Amino acid sequence: MALIVQKYGGTSVGSIERINAVADRVMASRKAGNDIVVVVSAMSGETDRLLGLASEISQAPAARELDVLLSTGEQVTIALLCIALNEMGCPAISYTGSQVRILTDDAHNKARILDIQDHNIRANLAEGKVVVVAGFQGVDEKGNITTLGRGGSDTTAVALAAAMKAHECHIYTDVDGVYTADPRIVSRARRLDSVTYEEMLEMASLGSKVLQIRSVEFAQKFHVQLRVLSSFEDGPGTLITEEDESMEQALISGIAQNKDEAKLTVVGVPDKPGIAHSILGPIADANIEVDMIVQNVGVDNTTDFTFTVHRNDYDKALGILNKTAKTLGAREVTGDKGIVKISVVGIGMRSHAGIASKMFNALAQEGINIMMISTSEIKISVVVDEKYLELGVRTLHSEFGLEQESA
Amino acid sequence: MALIVQKYGGTSVGSIERINAVADRVMASRKAGNDIVVVVSAMSGETDRLLGLASEISQAPAARELDVLLSTGEQVTIALLCIALNEMGCPAISYTGSQVRILTDDAHNKARILDIQDHNIRANLAEGKVVVVAGFQGVDEKGNITTLGRGGSDTTAVALAAAMKAHECHIYTDVDGVYTADPRIVSRARRLDSVTYEEMLEMASLGSKVLQIRSVEFAQKFHVQLRVLSSFEDGPGTLITEEDESMEQALISGIAQNKDEAKLTVVGVPDKPGIAHSILGPIADANIEVDMIVQNVGVDNTTDFTFTVHRNDYDKALGILNKTAKTLGAREVTGDKGIVKISVVGIGMRSHAGIASKMFNALAQEGINIMMISTSEIKISVVVDEKYLELGVRTLHSEFGLEQESA
Repeated sequence: MALIVQKYGGTSVGSIERINAVADRVMASRKAGNDIVVVVSAMSGETDRLLGLASEISQAPAARELDVLLSTGEQVTIALLCIALNEMGCPAISYTGSQVRILTDDAHNKARILDIQDHNIRANLAEGKVVVVAGFQGVDEKGNITTLGRGGSDTTAVALAAAMKAHECHIYTDVDGVYTADPRIVSRARRLDSVTYEEMLEMASLGSKVLQIRSVEFAQKFHVQLRVLSSFEDGPGTLITEEDESMEQALISGIAQNKDEAKLTVVGVPDKPGIAHSILGPIADANIEVDMIVQNVGVDNTTDFTFTVHRNDYDKALGILNKTAKTLGAREVTGDKGIVKISVVGIGMRSHAGIASKMFNALAQEGINIMMISTSEIKISVVVDEKYLELGVRTLHSEFGLEQESA
Repeated sequence: MALIVQKYGGTSVGSIERINAVADRVMASRKAGNDIVVVVSAMSGETDRLLGLASEISQAPAARELDVLLSTGEQVTIALLCIALNEMGCPAISYTGSQVRILTDDAHNKARILDIQDHNIRANLAEGKVVVVAGFQGVDEKGNITTLGRGGSDTTAVALAAAMKAHECHIYTDVDGVYTADPRIVSRARRLDSVTYEEMLEMASLGSKVLQIRSVEFAQKFHVQLRVLSSFEDGPGTLITEEDESMEQALISGIAQNKDEAKLTVVGVPDKPGIAHSILGPIADANIEVDMIVQNVGVDNTTDFTFTVHRNDYDKALGILNKTAKTLGAREVTGDKGIVKISVVGIGMRSHAGIASKMFNALAQEGINIMMISTSEIKISVVVDEKYLELGVRTLHSEFGLEQESA
């Protein structure tokens, strides 16, 4: 008898009909002979509704009370799912984070899990019950309700799987796995049977929103076998796991894209030590995250300094940068919101040279101009004009032979 | 420094605007130098919304899970009220029933409070905070969430006031106190400054819906001074308390009415011992509550047996009664949904004779025919045709001199 932790997100439990469908799926897994712990999110839209109520009262709601408020979202879902399971004749019992108990630190709205006491869950599993746990929430040492921040339900599921040494942790979403590229762009994109934690982390950070980065990191740290599956159709999904021998054969696992960034350039900064810090310090102080950074030294002893931020932070960053540029005596500040980042990701890159030049050549052949380049051990990213998004992704997908075998 | 427990019902916290108004009121009481514990219900409509979700899944939802579901209603309110109070600069902290901890038995959906551990609340009051507690809910010995059943928030407030030996327990509603009669019927009805527990209990049982019967019983048992106040306007409200000397002067405190009943009669039942049980046994087995019961022995050794039930139960009771009548060899079954019960209530009745005849005479003068009579130590009720409701109430209100002094 294997222990499986299943996690269903807000869309999967977004209506009574869908909750009943989840109950069907849970009962089938139970009947197949597994012990099942289910983690659920709030019904889609509910967290935003609650946040809306709070924001009508205060622009900066008391953090402790916001957690009391938001945690009701998952509490509604665990109750409804257990009502559905019991109605079907499948004994089930719900647990809030506090009841489990999922002990966290006291950093309200972004708490970290410290410990999971699983004796309540184990006792119920031993009685043959399905245990349904509220995701995203925990309790601090003093009994205050805490939440893990957005996407925290994935983290709850992985942490439970780690604590209980589950066979696998299944994350049900609205897609049926991790693909070699966005299927909306590349019609012949292929579902991957498996992918390493590191590749998944790169893909997630590059905008492929299948899984929360934090939960993948957690899974990697505690060696939890993660599987991404569709909550709407059957299928094996994609297993996210440790690197193994068989995986080395795939040079590139996928092509990722990110349309959420914008780029900013300080042109003609007098080149002297400490420039990077002078420019990025005020940006960091404003809590703006910087992604890619490129610096070129020009001929006249001035530097062009370019970096990317989230599009939502663009205007704020531009304002800060204009002030900095004045202080530094830079020539001008330019910016561009119309960019996209395209990346090739693959653990095989480690042992193969020439991936970068192959990538740049393929893009050049299509007349796609590269604005910025950044690399990691298992990823190469380029920033290009957003009009090249589809062409760029399709070109690279084909260049690295990721297409599905034609049926 | 007095400790006041304040309770606000669903209507009083039915919108963000009203929650802000409650926060204003709480802060004013706090600034007046009192220690304040606030008990709140779910926002009006929320409990029904949650019940609706459950009933879409199951006609008989698992009782434990229904409590997990419903308890989120008050949890939302405590969080929002604390966000509002903190926003105003009034330090406040919320507690769920489980966090308080309000220990109950494990009778889900209708749990009884066993014990209240108030050290958390006391510690926060000592720090100068307002403590906001979720009404209607508790936790059993095993940590399962329980609810006290509808209207349970009043009970929570009274139980907290009792456990903490509060100076008074203030129940805020949409009326500004207890009246000598329904002001919609009697324009010159007078707000009572005080009324005894027993009178309030009779009025509540007679359909005056200012307070839940259970909370008044609880207040009486633990000598809690209860005060009914309006959450929309200022005023002293009505104090519900022990009988004292000064109260004896009022003969009659008020006229109550109840339009929710219907009457059923089994005509011509052969009179022999055990008739009442034969007729009412099957009614009780069907979980139908019987209010008034009258039995007359006729000339021909047959009995007419009449009783009243809630109008919602009328059809069900009629069906049962038709079968019973056949078994007993009764002549026929008649019924009437068009009735109303009018009652005079007053603790002064105990020491004064002649109230009943004065009441019957006044009604007769107006040509109002009495169908049934029932009395208790401090109440006389009559059932009349519902067309006489307003006339009957006004007649008695005037007969017993309850009118407001004209301004």
